[in-house]
Amino acid sequence: MTLFAGVDAGGTTTRAAVHAADGTRLGYGVAGPGNPAARGAAAAGTAIERALRDALDGLDPSLVAGSVAGVAGADEHFAGTLRQVWAACGLTAPPRLVGDVDVAYAAGTPAPSGTVLLAGTGAAAARFARHAVTDVADGLGWLLGDEGGGFWIGRAGIREAVRALDRGLTSGPLVELVSAHFAVTGAPRRRADRVVRLAQAEPTVVAAAAPLVTEAAAAGDPRAAGVVTEAARRLAATANRVHREGPIVLAGGVLTADGPVRAAVTALLDGHELLTARDGAAGASWLAALDRLPDPLAAHARFVRAGERVRP
Amino acid sequence: MTLFAGVDAGGTTTRAAVHAADGTRLGYGVAGPGNPAARGAAAAGTAIERALRDALDGLDPSLVAGSVAGVAGADEHFAGTLRQVWAACGLTAPPRLVGDVDVAYAAGTPAPSGTVLLAGTGAAAARFARHAVTDVADGLGWLLGDEGGGFWIGRAGIREAVRALDRGLTSGPLVELVSAHFAVTGAPRRRADRVVRLAQAEPTVVAAAAPLVTEAAAAGDPRAAGVVTEAARRLAATANRVHREGPIVLAGGVLTADGPVRAAVTALLDGHELLTARDGAAGASWLAALDRLPDPLAAHARFVRAGERVRP
Repeated sequence: MTLFAGVDAGGTTTRAAVHAADGTRLGYGVAGPGNPAARGAAAAGTAIERALRDALDGLDPSLVAGSVAGVAGADEHFAGTLRQVWAACGLTAPPRLVGDVDVAYAAGTPAPSGTVLLAGTGAAAARFARHAVTDVADGLGWLLGDEGGGFWIGRAGIREAVRALDRGLTSGPLVELVSAHFAVTGAPRRRADRVVRLAQAEPTVVAAAAPLVTEAAAAGDPRAAGVVTEAARRLAATANRVHREGPIVLAGGVLTADGPVRAAVTALLDGHELLTARDGAAGASWLAALDRLPDPLAAHARFVRAGERVRP
Repeated sequence: MTLFAGVDAGGTTTRAAVHAADGTRLGYGVAGPGNPAARGAAAAGTAIERALRDALDGLDPSLVAGSVAGVAGADEHFAGTLRQVWAACGLTAPPRLVGDVDVAYAAGTPAPSGTVLLAGTGAAAARFARHAVTDVADGLGWLLGDEGGGFWIGRAGIREAVRALDRGLTSGPLVELVSAHFAVTGAPRRRADRVVRLAQAEPTVVAAAAPLVTEAAAAGDPRAAGVVTEAARRLAATANRVHREGPIVLAGGVLTADGPVRAAVTALLDGHELLTARDGAAGASWLAALDRLPDPLAAHARFVRAGERVRP
């Protein structure tokens, strides 16, 4: 029996999957943030080890014939951390280390050429040829870019709410949701000042406001709808900057969750073959199997299907 | 003899001035950051006390008939801190607490109606009528607004440098200055990644890059010139959103220093009476004297002139 293992180490959640050669999922594990840039290499390594151990539970790790780890912003130092984690889990060879866009693209399509548009907290697009990245757009981080991603949406929504409060407006879905998010009450100008200070003091709370913006847009708030429209426009532009041929895979929480951003991006990219990446860990596992399968395209659907977990 | 005291407590520097009723400067003091929102009330109070004590050195504080403190983002709690500082310095009455825009406007003009456009690290405009603020634009902080201010310019310049590095470009004034600012070397993509991480980890270093952007623009860098043009456009738009009548006072380091931003804003606001605020502490001192002077307009020039300090 031959096994393949894949890890998708995200800024919020780390997922690991183990598959048989025919694509049957045999194990799965979930842990906290596994992004070394955000949380440090040690904490990320610990999260990845936890997810991988859970995915391997009850399986013989020496049967793993190939493995891939998808990690955004990893460096050589972190490759060393992963070698230690893999050895501790009993795997005989270290993983191939790729980016978050690689596993997201593989989770959406087996096509060798195409584009992934990834929007979670951040936002980036990558073009692939022969399953390898050939061009990237955006991905510049929350301070400088990531246009249309979760942080960007949260920040733009908070900005609109603060502007409305500065004009003395205290009603409407967006202003009310943002005020509640920051637990501010009272006169609108004071609320606005406190929201500005709280958001600056803890930027991580900004991305957490993104779902409120889409909720307010769905409730008919015109300011929130404007933010959603602009986010979708920027995301589609990011994809169009690199896309040449093949399908476009939509990945990341902002684009895989049903909602106004996904709907607007889908409309803007109308005419392209649009696919959705549901499970980056399965994509990573399929990438690990890619060169060892007789018919990798046929196996892809079994690897990445949103199936029941074999074990809970 | 009657004295007036003024304090301009900024995010970088705190200045205090003591004047005679005819506007003669009798004392001056300088200390570090005095902005409670940025540094906390205790540190800000300590800086303000240091500047005020130096300004009062050799003078009888009981002769101070009026005083004004200009502090951005102060609240009731900080008013209490200032009362303690004033009492500790021997003044018989607490200061009138106003905003940073009030003292900047007063430093530029004695006119009761007009506008101040303030661009230091942040950026805001305020309209005045009868020496009181009647409308404000921007001032939303580095995360949400302050468009065209020092942080905004630094961030936009770093973004342009990172985009150039992402395209493999390593030459040109802006890319070279930004690379040196963050002490990054080597391959362009790696440099770009490290600049993004360093800027996000310590946003205060972003505003410090603003002078590099204007330097690169002056050296003919087209990306830096684009940032300067856009910063000036946004600053002029901020002023135009509130301006109705009277002069426009240019204030803050970005607008008072000779350079491409000041030149571009001056050109965009052509047709208005443009004045420059040089010394916010003197403006605060003049505001303290305003209701007690027989001819406040005539005294203004003596209060705010960039005169020699009477004592070092």
